Amino acid sequence: MFAHNKRLQYTVRVSGPNPGLANLMLEQFGGPQGELAAAMRYFTQAVAEDDPGRKDMLFDIATEELSHLEVIGNIVVMLNKGAKGKLAEGVEEEGEMYRSITGAGNDSHITQVLYGAGAPLTNSAGLPWRAEYIDTIGEPTADLRSNIAAEARAKIVYERLINLTEDPGVKEALGFLMTREIAHQKSFEKALYSISPNFPPGKLPGRPEFSSVYFNMSKGIGDERGPWNQGEKWEFVADPDQAQAVDGGTGEASVDLPTTDATMVENLAARTASNPSTDPLTGAELGMGVSPEGLEELALEGAGGGTTSSPPSRKR
Amino acid sequence: MFAHNKRLQYTVRVSGPNPGLANLMLEQFGGPQGELAAAMRYFTQAVAEDDPGRKDMLFDIATEELSHLEVIGNIVVMLNKGAKGKLAEGVEEEGEMYRSITGAGNDSHITQVLYGAGAPLTNSAGLPWRAEYIDTIGEPTADLRSNIAAEARAKIVYERLINLTEDPGVKEALGFLMTREIAHQKSFEKALYSISPNFPPGKLPGRPEFSSVYFNMSKGIGDERGPWNQGEKWEFVADPDQAQAVDGGTGEASVDLPTTDATMVENLAARTASNPSTDPLTGAELGMGVSPEGLEELALEGAGGGTTSSPPSRKR
Amino acid sequence: MFAHNKRLQYTVRVSGPNPGLANLMLEQFGGPQGELAAAMRYFTQAVAEDDPGRKDMLFDIATEELSHLEVIGNIVVMLNKGAKGKLAEGVEEEGEMYRSITGAGNDSHITQVLYGAGAPLTNSAGLPWRAEYIDTIGEPTADLRSNIAAEARAKIVYERLINLTEDPGVKEALGFLMTREIAHQKSFEKALYSISPNFPPGKLPGRPEFSSVYFNMSKGIGDERGPWNQGEKWEFVADPDQAQAVDGGTGEASVDLPTTDATMVENLAARTASNPSTDPLTGAELGMGVSPEGLEELALEGAGGGTTSSPPSRKR
Amino acid sequence: MFAHNKRLQYTVRVSGPNPGLANLMLEQFGGPQGELAAAMRYFTQAVAEDDPGRKDMLFDIATEELSHLEVIGNIVVMLNKGAKGKLAEGVEEEGEMYRSITGAGNDSHITQVLYGAGAPLTNSAGLPWRAEYIDTIGEPTADLRSNIAAEARAKIVYERLINLTEDPGVKEALGFLMTREIAHQKSFEKALYSISPNFPPGKLPGRPEFSSVYFNMSKGIGDERGPWNQGEKWEFVADPDQAQAVDGGTGEASVDLPTTDATMVENLAARTASNPSTDPLTGAELGMGVSPEGLEELALEGAGGGTTSSPPSRKR
Amino acid sequence: MFAHNKRLQYTVRVSGPNPGLANLMLEQFGGPQGELAAAMRYFTQAVAEDDPGRKDMLFDIATEELSHLEVIGNIVVMLNKGAKGKLAEGVEEEGEMYRSITGAGNDSHITQVLYGAGAPLTNSAGLPWRAEYIDTIGEPTADLRSNIAAEARAKIVYERLINLTEDPGVKEALGFLMTREIAHQKSFEKALYSISPNFPPGKLPGRPEFSSVYFNMSKGIGDERGPWNQGEKWEFVADPDQAQAVDGGTGEASVDLPTTDATMVENLAARTASNPSTDPLTGAELGMGVSPEGLEELALEGAGGGTTSSPPSRKR
Amino acid sequence: MFAHNKRLQYTVRVSGPNPGLANLMLEQFGGPQGELAAAMRYFTQAVAEDDPGRKDMLFDIATEELSHLEVIGNIVVMLNKGAKGKLAEGVEEEGEMYRSITGAGNDSHITQVLYGAGAPLTNSAGLPWRAEYIDTIGEPTADLRSNIAAEARAKIVYERLINLTEDPGVKEALGFLMTREIAHQKSFEKALYSISPNFPPGKLPGRPEFSSVYFNMSKGIGDERGPWNQGEKWEFVADPDQAQAVDGGTGEASVDLPTTDATMVENLAARTASNPSTDPLTGAELGMGVSPEGLEELALEGAGGGTTSSPPSRKR
Repeated sequence: MFAHNKRLQYTVRVSGPNPGLANLMLEQFGGPQGELAAAMRYFTQAVAEDDPGRKDMLFDIATEELSHLEVIGNIVVMLNKGAKGKLAEGVEEEGEMYRSITGAGNDSHITQVLYGAGAPLTNSAGLPWRAEYIDTIGEPTADLRSNIAAEARAKIVYERLINLTEDPGVKEALGFLMTREIAHQKSFEKALYSISPNFPPGKLPGRPEFSSVYFNMSKGIGDERGPWNQGEKWEFVADPDQAQAVDGGTGEASVDLPTTDATMVENLAARTASNPSTDPLTGAELGMGVSPEGLEELALEGAGGGTTSSPPSRKR
Repeated sequence: MFAHNKRLQYTVRVSGPNPGLANLMLEQFGGPQGELAAAMRYFTQAVAEDDPGRKDMLFDIATEELSHLEVIGNIVVMLNKGAKGKLAEGVEEEGEMYRSITGAGNDSHITQVLYGAGAPLTNSAGLPWRAEYIDTIGEPTADLRSNIAAEARAKIVYERLINLTEDPGVKEALGFLMTREIAHQKSFEKALYSISPNFPPGKLPGRPEFSSVYFNMSKGIGDERGPWNQGEKWEFVADPDQAQAVDGGTGEASVDLPTTDATMVENLAARTASNPSTDPLTGAELGMGVSPEGLEELALEGAGGGTTSSPPSRKR
Repeated sequence: MFAHNKRLQYTVRVSGPNPGLANLMLEQFGGPQGELAAAMRYFTQAVAEDDPGRKDMLFDIATEELSHLEVIGNIVVMLNKGAKGKLAEGVEEEGEMYRSITGAGNDSHITQVLYGAGAPLTNSAGLPWRAEYIDTIGEPTADLRSNIAAEARAKIVYERLINLTEDPGVKEALGFLMTREIAHQKSFEKALYSISPNFPPGKLPGRPEFSSVYFNMSKGIGDERGPWNQGEKWEFVADPDQAQAVDGGTGEASVDLPTTDATMVENLAARTASNPSTDPLTGAELGMGVSPEGLEELALEGAGGGTTSSPPSRKR
Repeated sequence: MFAHNKRLQYTVRVSGPNPGLANLMLEQFGGPQGELAAAMRYFTQAVAEDDPGRKDMLFDIATEELSHLEVIGNIVVMLNKGAKGKLAEGVEEEGEMYRSITGAGNDSHITQVLYGAGAPLTNSAGLPWRAEYIDTIGEPTADLRSNIAAEARAKIVYERLINLTEDPGVKEALGFLMTREIAHQKSFEKALYSISPNFPPGKLPGRPEFSSVYFNMSKGIGDERGPWNQGEKWEFVADPDQAQAVDGGTGEASVDLPTTDATMVENLAARTASNPSTDPLTGAELGMGVSPEGLEELALEGAGGGTTSSPPSRKR
Repeated sequence: MFAHNKRLQYTVRVSGPNPGLANLMLEQFGGPQGELAAAMRYFTQAVAEDDPGRKDMLFDIATEELSHLEVIGNIVVMLNKGAKGKLAEGVEEEGEMYRSITGAGNDSHITQVLYGAGAPLTNSAGLPWRAEYIDTIGEPTADLRSNIAAEARAKIVYERLINLTEDPGVKEALGFLMTREIAHQKSFEKALYSISPNFPPGKLPGRPEFSSVYFNMSKGIGDERGPWNQGEKWEFVADPDQAQAVDGGTGEASVDLPTTDATMVENLAARTASNPSTDPLTGAELGMGVSPEGLEELALEGAGGGTTSSPPSRKR
Repeated sequence: MFAHNKRLQYTVRVSGPNPGLANLMLEQFGGPQGELAAAMRYFTQAVAEDDPGRKDMLFDIATEELSHLEVIGNIVVMLNKGAKGKLAEGVEEEGEMYRSITGAGNDSHITQVLYGAGAPLTNSAGLPWRAEYIDTIGEPTADLRSNIAAEARAKIVYERLINLTEDPGVKEALGFLMTREIAHQKSFEKALYSISPNFPPGKLPGRPEFSSVYFNMSKGIGDERGPWNQGEKWEFVADPDQAQAVDGGTGEASVDLPTTDATMVENLAARTASNPSTDPLTGAELGMGVSPEGLEELALEGAGGGTTSSPPSRKR
């Protein structure tokens, strides 16, 4: 069960109103790398987790992320407070109001017109939060890696916001939030490596003949080698052509169909065949504005078919 | 530039039609952990990458994932081929067609009615693919961790599909695809650890006073310790109350507003205040079907206000 | 700031595994009327709220809804626990596993294959939660009405789930959750009617000539009167034709364009005009498989234009 | 059945081209509180409604909202008409065109490049309309409350747009549209209170022991009382700790599993346990760039485990 | 199977950094008419196609569109390269960074803060790509028409981007990409008209009595005739009232219900009836701030019911 | 302005309740090819259209599609009516209710639990309608082609639903709706070919050297020729390698960067370089459970670097 205290985890001191900056901050409120995504990621994992240590850790961190959501939300609200009052009371001159709402050069207009300068769960482009941001699949050796990556991403977005912010109070709070992502990443790393073995993830082993092969599918200028495809641990297949049908088969797809199914498939194919040996008149040709005489000619040509020349060689 | 050969990377041999199974396979065609997500994740990173080794590796793997998308797509198409013919030709008895389309016990009806038993870019519940599945942010120490996690997740979903499949040809192809995720994860791990240092990600350091603290935000039965929160590398804060306003401030949010802004905010607050010292009649009370006499009484009581008793003690 | 205790607000006692039922329960976990929607609705309002009474109430209820999210999530997890173990360990016979995963007759396959029988933030059809479910706009007389409606909807969905459930422990917990929605609705009603006046919402008054008119836009059998359109408070406009251009104008849209803009618009119109006085040959006619001779005829007819007869009268 | 007349319900007179303003207007064309949402909300309720009075009212209002959709769409089109011509004819100097398309300071660029300065069904941030905006659940005492709230929200968004607009013709038409939301809200209120009783919504009564309790889940500075949680109608639970397991149980979740299920769950837990009594070397530590010697040391330390000190006390 | 060569299909030469322009280009990278949509549209059709000619053509064009995706992606990356370096290294003065990120007047802030100035799969408003953009249904006479239309749309969006661009290298590459859409449209037209007949699409014929009727559902000023509704091929129904119940029935919907079902429906209707013969007091009236005395009066009036006057005639 | 008459355009006679069939019908109510998509497609085009003939036609057809939306919605409601009563009144035995709600074998559970057996704007998989389904871009030669394609698709989905339906009244109404799509397609074809020329769409001509080239990007077994790539109108490029850098350039992407930008890009590259000449120890290797001694060895090997053997030849 959750409880709440109206004191924040980190004091928020904002120097002055700035709806444009408020809008950028939404990235970490309702954006894909933001605090709601983090809180819900860990909370839902915690609820489903059976390992007592991980379950407790996930609840600890989920709860802290909810508290961070509150901190970043308060930053947004403070930056927007002036705009909220003026818009609701409608006291500025009309042109002034319009200019202030579109003049931030970003999507703060949506935040203000639609959301009343509140704290909506959107990213900085106004896209509402969606649970697609959570990539949990219910297997700890995968989910902990996902969590590690998520913390790394969140750290970077905070870093960028700090680089963009002039307000010292905002900078300071963002610095706290950024740092906590580092600490969380460390906890998730410890939890992952406390599972032994943790690679490959899951229970089924890979097929040995394919687990250390590297297919050089992209050729040409810029081909490089490195530890990701060289060394005795790797079998390097230089030519992608060799990667066709690596099972040694034909590389074709087939299915055994019951006779009636096969007949229906054939009927469908016959009914919808594109006849390759004609050159039909098309809507595009009609659309080029050919005259009636030209049309007849085109139509005859189309009916005649077969007159198409052999493909010309490339002349470049 | 891409080129294509109509031979598959792995031969697909399907034993017989099975639209219900086809539908489950969509999870790795157009689902969040599927091959389109993988291909586009690495392709877009490759396009934006400046490091020559990573750029080449990302193009190699992106191209292979596109080829896997083709393999899994062919599995879907083969499993659906019988259904496609019958639906298009409309030859079965009506009741039979309806039963076969809904009888698989999953969402194969959407695949068949809307998509004509083709290979749509949806997950197994019919949700169209969306780029929210890609969590790239343009910083390699974060993106490589995201890629590592993505490969781990994809490996697990293939493992589950293998557990569910009886068709030996499908099982074999899935085994190939699953194994390749393991190989890719190994490449991304090598690329990540070739960046030194790679932790913490990005350029800005964390604030030292917060980067090794663990806040025990979830208390009660089930509290556990482990390497993620114990040992000399951690400062453990046992009581979440101590986590309030860790900056030493009041834990409140504030903003310095220009006078006119402040006035507007006050006006707005006054206009929309919920008066706590009254007990107004509400729509819910109207909705309980109180009689006119009762209404009057309620209204007077509401007007009188202040009569509310002190909060009763909890009687449990 | 939030804190958490691993004891639930309501004890969850589930009689036995039932993945199909688990799936239905997701409606109130990650569905539009579910507990995450409720918690985030009130939490984001609380963060942005300036009225001290409402702010406190919104935090109280948001926190309780988070605790309810945990209760319903635990119901899902308990109902799925057996399926989770079997799927991850892959021990059942293959056919059996497939049948159990699709046999529930609903979308439990997605919950199990993709989410590993965990507690994903989706509705019962597998649609991930999205912040579009929150309709907060930052004006209390509107938002409180939205909250009242949201509680009413959540109450009903719980009622339906109770009707569908046989498991007594699940029924009991759902009964608790349903009841709390009633209590919350009562609180929001009190808070709304503590604002006086609260209708019409906002600051701008309506235009009196339009605020009590009822336009009878749908005519024919089934026209009804009731307090929503009759009585001395209403002006009833019986014929929708009278509702055209109620301002007394022409009912047309116009804009004053600078000359150059107007010229461009005219050029565009001329370039893309559909000439009404011809009967062109179309792609559809080509597609009907007309012979070349027929084509010529059609083309000439099209060129001739103007030969089209007067519209025939309707012969029914 | 619907019929249409090309005269608008309200004459639209726009002073001059203004693509930036056009974009803001989209909020009420294809936004969540806009006219399509309103029309479809009432139309779909009307189709499913069995009560003759409500069915007729819902069709009346749905039809009017469609007519409003047409009015606001014409405002958008008139404001965009100049831009449409110039963009399609490509006659401005290139730099000029680019500046005009991005200079509005909002998302008008998407409206123009993608939608050709037409009237797309998006909100002002370019997010396409989605039926998630409609919260109908098919129970009139809930749906009418949802409708009341929807009208209140729409009224407010119109109020904000009026505050932002300088064009007198646009202001006037917006004033008409805003006023109609007031009238519709009144109709829905009458229809709701014509159902008696209408609270609590639905058929199942709440559990009396929980329907008048208020849990004070958020404590600390700012705790407030008001009619929403005080008075003789409420039982006030001051301490959230008392809200744990209000059923008197343990507050834990349990399920009775068949033996084989239980075994599988245990196997899964054992296979994926995070061992709390070790301090493993992690990827993050590798990533900090520790030297080989350091690595060995770390590895030994990790293997040794158990050396972790007792948690240090919090030093603040 | 796909292979890749790191040489582009078209050389990309960009004059200088321009994040605002980069953002507009995203329209054809991850937008609805962009290259990913094209590539995936044709690729998924190719996988499911049985006609050998069409299958080959679809793979040819899908592969080329992937190569175009790479070209437009490189344009985006080159335009963003300067911004990427500055943002990641955080070297500009803070205010400068903020201004450059919001000063483009479009959504380039989202591209930079969230995506690190990379090449995300979004449209120019930051909306992530979604497979809803692909309208394939698995019937070639429909899908080829969809492809023809898709190529036409893509051609137009390129045309607009060319009109907006000053950079000659970007213009040139866009010109290439635009032209290829023309060539592809021509191929799809040929493939469509190689199916004979191809209209009406599918197998079932239409009902002859309805296939050449034109219902004039929109009346009033602006009624026009043209080849789409006049000529001997059309039966023109001038008055929409004649279009009601064109089957000659009552125009009502009915279902034969089993007795128990019918009873339940009646019970539901009775329980939730809105009584038309009363004038209940409503929440809106409460919200207008009526005094207790007024309330009583209103309540009595409501209870009295039936006193409502006959609807007043429209007085305008 | 719209008006409504409660008589349907086509009488709906349903034989009996069938929630599973109701669910399939949703495909044409709120699905991508359904009637709302059609109505809104033409309505929004009509609002923005300047050509008087097309504007009138678009309003005519939009209005008819709205009327079709009503017809298909009534089919859904009639098929669901029995379920609605039973669910709301909760009178069936619990197990029976659960079985009936999940036993249809499709997503009818979502329709019933969440939407109360009403007529929600979703497709048959429960995905809410979204305006992404509308591909209008504001250029008539493109939009009319999109409309033609949309009508073709809708015709096919109706054909499939007819094939699946046993209820004669439903079949008959679907036959009407299907036929009207044919008639509408014919009208749009006439309107398109009344614009002359209409190909290529838009104003800018293509670059002649690329507008008739066909690149054979997919090679191997199954290469086919047909009118889409052969004949004197086409230049056929047989080898995709010839398609690299068709402009004759290097096929590389470049941008001229100011010096400071270039420096930042270089700094970023240096800071995040993946060093190709080492073989670092990775998290995956840690995760394989190597012993401390092994770790040291691995670490030394990693530090030593350069020892990696030459890539082994492919041994298959």
